[in-house]
This record gives sequence, structure tokens and C-alpha cells, in this order.
Amino acid sequence: MVKGKASDRRSHCPISVALEIFGDRWSLLLIRDMLLLGKTTYGEFLASGEGIATNILADRLQRLETLKIIESRGDPDNRRRTIYRLTAKGRDLAPVLVEIILWSAKHEPPPVCPDTAEVRKRLASFAKRARTDRDGLIEEIRDRFYAED
Amino acid sequence: MVKGKASDRRSHCPISVALEIFGDRWSLLLIRDMLLLGKTTYGEFLASGEGIATNILADRLQRLETLKIIESRGDPDNRRRTIYRLTAKGRDLAPVLVEIILWSAKHEPPPVCPDTAEVRKRLASFAKRARTDRDGLIEEIRDRFYAED
Repeated sequence: MVKGKASDRRSHCPISVALEIFGDRWSLLLIRDMLLLGKTTYGEFLASGEGIATNILADRLQRLETLKIIESRGDPDNRRRTIYRLTAKGRDLAPVLVEIILWSAKHEPPPVCPDTAEVRKRLASFAKRARTDRDGLIEEIRDRFYAED
Repeated sequence: MVKGKASDRRSHCPISVALEIFGDRWSLLLIRDMLLLGKTTYGEFLASGEGIATNILADRLQRLETLKIIESRGDPDNRRRTIYRLTAKGRDLAPVLVEIILWSAKHEPPPVCPDTAEVRKRLASFAKRARTDRDGLIEEIRDRFYAED
């Protein structure tokens, strides 16, 4: 699935090219974890609510790094741990995530149950902000965990 | 992969929910074919440059219809042919496609070759329009082939 060389692409359509990079059920969730939730480690990604399998997680991290969406380095506080962070290319996916969230909030709202009352409330406030100050929101998301870059 | 019932979802995160719908290498290409290229038939989708396999195409059309992203009806001019069209829910994916195109154009430009000079030129003009009149562009894309709805 990794298409490093442009000559391997199935077409030059920018949508097709993008889907060869993150067109699967997991890659954008890892980008969400890093961009919106500030997660940086394998263990943190593994603990996300969707229950990613260890082999898929390892494969996706490697692919995203090969494609320069994320970069990794050793944790200075723990030599056995690797820290994963989005590159500028990866953070530039913020507007894609924002539009996906808005679409889902409109067309696939969470079911009514006590668990998700908080989710609904946060989604409503996010959608309101996205409608009135989309560019500011994207800028904020893009930089929240990357202020020093 | 079809998750019709909210209770089957792996989580209520709106990004996760959306990826359970179109998180694969093909679904958004079919939505591109309908939304940006005005394609409506199985034969037209099959002829797209990425070379989708017949079994995958049939599966994706069925899934997208189950999930109310597209709807189908018989072609009044040819009883053996089915016409597929996006629903309002499907057309609301226009902003997602626009952001994916912009991201690709910036980070994964097509290689330099005679074939793609035209692609580059169209992408540059699309990106320029998206930066200066994003909402107008999305409105236009959303309605181009659906003016009568």
C-alpha cells in the first residue's frame, strides 16, 4: 500500500493519490490522536477507544513515517520509548479532519445515550466554531501540540 | 464494513464513524466520479483511470447505497441500466474532497511529464479558486450535476 514513487501511483488524480496514503480505516485515526488529542506513543495510540490491533498499528506508523506524514525519535526520558509526531505535511491534514467531523456531526450523529451526551455537546460547540471561525479553528488545531515547531 | 446500526460502531468519534463509511481506497473515488465528473453508471465508474475491479465496484456501490450516500434508479432510456446519484448526504462530502485535493496538490504534486502538465495547470487554478472563494467553489461543485434537486 505504500506508494513512495510517483510512478507507482494508480493515477495522478489528487484524490486518488491521497487515498493511497490515508485511504483506510485507521490512518486518519492516528492522525486524529496526534493532532487533536496530543498523543505521541505507541501505547497511547493502542489505548484509543477503537481497539486497533498491534500489527495494524505498527504497520500504519511505519507507512505514515515512510510517507513523511509523521516522524519518530527516541524519548530522551525513556530510551526504550519512541515518540511519534506529525510533520508539517501531516498537520496540514487539519482541514480534512475538520470537514470530516462536520460531515459526521450533521449526518451521523451519535445515538442518544448518557455516554454520549458529552460527545454531542462538544460536537455542537465544535461545529459552531467551525462555521463562524473555520480558519482560526484549523490554525489552533494545527498548532495546539506543536507550538515550539 | 457496513455499519448500519449506531450500536455496531467501534466508537462514537465522528472521524471514526466517517472512516467506517468511506475509509477505504475506493469509496471517495466513486464520490469524486459522481460529484466532480458527473458520472452516473456502473460502466462509467469502471472506466475511471484507477482500474477498480468489478467486484469491488459492485460492493462499494451497494455499501454507499445502504448508507444513503448514493441512491439508484432505473434509467428511463435503458431499462437494463441503473443510474446512481449522490444524495444530499453524499454531496455534503464536497468540502472533504476539496480539502483532500488542496492537501495533495501541496504535498504530493504530480511528477513532471507531458501527460500531467494539464493536470498541474488545472490543480493550480483549482487551488487558487479554493483559496480566494472556497465557499463559492464548494457550492458550485455540490450543485453542478444536481441543479434540478
